[in-house]
Amino acid sequence: MSNCDFFPNAGGIRPIKYSDGVMRLIDQRRLPTEELWLEYTDYQQVAEAIRSMVVRGAPAIGITAAYGAYFGARDIKAESYSDFISEFDQVCEVLAATRPTAVNLFWALQRMKSLVHANADQPVGNLKIGLEYEAMAINEEDIRINMKMGRHGAALLPDQVRILTHCNAGALATGGYGTALGVIRAAVAAGKQVSVFADETRPFLQGSRLTAWELQQDSIQTVLICDNMAGYLMSKGAIDAVIVGADRIAANGDVANKIGTYTVAVLAKEHNIPFYVAAPISTIDLQIADGSLIPIEERDIREVTHIGEQQLAPTGIGVLNPAFDVTPARLVSAIITEHGVARGNYAEQLADFVRQGG
Amino acid sequence: MSNCDFFPNAGGIRPIKYSDGVMRLIDQRRLPTEELWLEYTDYQQVAEAIRSMVVRGAPAIGITAAYGAYFGARDIKAESYSDFISEFDQVCEVLAATRPTAVNLFWALQRMKSLVHANADQPVGNLKIGLEYEAMAINEEDIRINMKMGRHGAALLPDQVRILTHCNAGALATGGYGTALGVIRAAVAAGKQVSVFADETRPFLQGSRLTAWELQQDSIQTVLICDNMAGYLMSKGAIDAVIVGADRIAANGDVANKIGTYTVAVLAKEHNIPFYVAAPISTIDLQIADGSLIPIEERDIREVTHIGEQQLAPTGIGVLNPAFDVTPARLVSAIITEHGVARGNYAEQLADFVRQGG
Repeated sequence: MSNCDFFPNAGGIRPIKYSDGVMRLIDQRRLPTEELWLEYTDYQQVAEAIRSMVVRGAPAIGITAAYGAYFGARDIKAESYSDFISEFDQVCEVLAATRPTAVNLFWALQRMKSLVHANADQPVGNLKIGLEYEAMAINEEDIRINMKMGRHGAALLPDQVRILTHCNAGALATGGYGTALGVIRAAVAAGKQVSVFADETRPFLQGSRLTAWELQQDSIQTVLICDNMAGYLMSKGAIDAVIVGADRIAANGDVANKIGTYTVAVLAKEHNIPFYVAAPISTIDLQIADGSLIPIEERDIREVTHIGEQQLAPTGIGVLNPAFDVTPARLVSAIITEHGVARGNYAEQLADFVRQGG
Repeated sequence: MSNCDFFPNAGGIRPIKYSDGVMRLIDQRRLPTEELWLEYTDYQQVAEAIRSMVVRGAPAIGITAAYGAYFGARDIKAESYSDFISEFDQVCEVLAATRPTAVNLFWALQRMKSLVHANADQPVGNLKIGLEYEAMAINEEDIRINMKMGRHGAALLPDQVRILTHCNAGALATGGYGTALGVIRAAVAAGKQVSVFADETRPFLQGSRLTAWELQQDSIQTVLICDNMAGYLMSKGAIDAVIVGADRIAANGDVANKIGTYTVAVLAKEHNIPFYVAAPISTIDLQIADGSLIPIEERDIREVTHIGEQQLAPTGIGVLNPAFDVTPARLVSAIITEHGVARGNYAEQLADFVRQGG
């Protein structure tokens, strides 16, 4: 297949590059001090890249898994449809088992499977070609969606605005441009005066390592803070709006996102600051009635007790490391999607957005 | 002078040891992986130890500065009272300029100066002896005060309780036993079933490095979390009470404490969890009407951007590093002191406690 470089001038890095049967990922564990690109051609390696957070961010995980599903399909030797589909299901299962919280992973794999099911009459070779195009389509659409979402979100912001964001819902978390940071990019492009406070986002430090890095690349004014400083800044009147991404949104509008998001939402409410969530329709999970049903990943405690080789806590101490939390819909001022902005009665509006197609 | 080992069986380490003209401090920057004791005999070195956080925690800073003031006095060559007091004032000024927020520093130095002023008729040699005793008295009283405070605080807690604490208000932050952790020690000693969640407390990680370490030494059940996980645990009903220390309490009950304390207080209010502050009378500053007037130290941004030699953020990014924040009195359920527990009308009760003497 040919190279693909989607929307090269839209702003922000493209963390997932694909050309001629090879996917390249920027190793997000090495940023900001090193820009290392890793090559993938095998679905098992792709699964490991998702597990170990070479790539992270709900939409980016979905795109990466789609390419992984294509690699898995491409390498299937079987020529009959029934043998092919049974092996392909196994490939998708391996990819689906990598991380539990972000629903975009399951959404992207389902889309790849649907393509196969809808073309059961085609020879396996054609299915493989179709899957490659589908993965590239998911990738390209994600960037296009983020640019639409950005315009919807930017319209919510005043002309001068100091925005707090948590974790990295940026170009690095998506195909490119970003969800929360896409709104920020669109606001900047619209001529608004935007400055950003980036929570460092312990324990994985997506804020200091990724958000600070990608906003710096785009020359967007950014101040890095520790997570526990956001309340202080709000109390001083230094923050006008909060924008975050989402890993899964329940049918009622409850939002699962990076651990600490809930705390930011409580603080925003206490200070009457709008709290916005920017996420594509593929993040909405109508199968989940409310946030209490969203599975929350617990990750290795070493993320908390160590930074690299450096030990930060006494050996043998108890540790918890939930990777996500749930912000109830009542604390969310609006959910920004590519189909528009939902406010208030989320159940109805989100269902409507999903019906329009994601 | 003789050795001093105050209340050796009370529980918790003694981070400041004094004997025969030498003060030893456990280097709190090296914990929990290394227990290194540093020796001090010179007030300039003591000032540097406070600045660089070899020792930290409001009461511990006060005690350390008192020993530092003694070392400065001891080394003054002048024999006339007027020459002595002028040099001694300079010593105290250097020590007072080390850190701005914790008022115990100024309280302890004022106490040392008052002793000199009250004994202007004495020969300089006697003043030096008096100052050594005064520093040791401040040290010993602090531990005694913490044990009293602990008993007052423990009475507020149910028989089974899961406590969240922020930063380190422990033995390491005081002469020994601790303020917030003193309440926890007293509750354990009273037979209550106590478990502790310790916020890691970015950027300096007093929670993971110090609180986790000293509670582990005392076999008190402790779970370490990142600061941004406390809200999640509260939303799950996993926390029954919050106890923190204080660096300065204004006349109206507003509390300056480690950055992030305010966020914990807002979260506690949102979840109807009692939020207790444990601090000695020497932390109350009746000269300060409310928390907005308390000076907030801004520390080196390298504390945020690096851990040891490891770089966590892109070079050149903007960073804020306020070391403290202010929790308004309305979010404080009670202030626990050695004279008893203040609730509700803090202005009157705190003034009354201070009149009783600190």
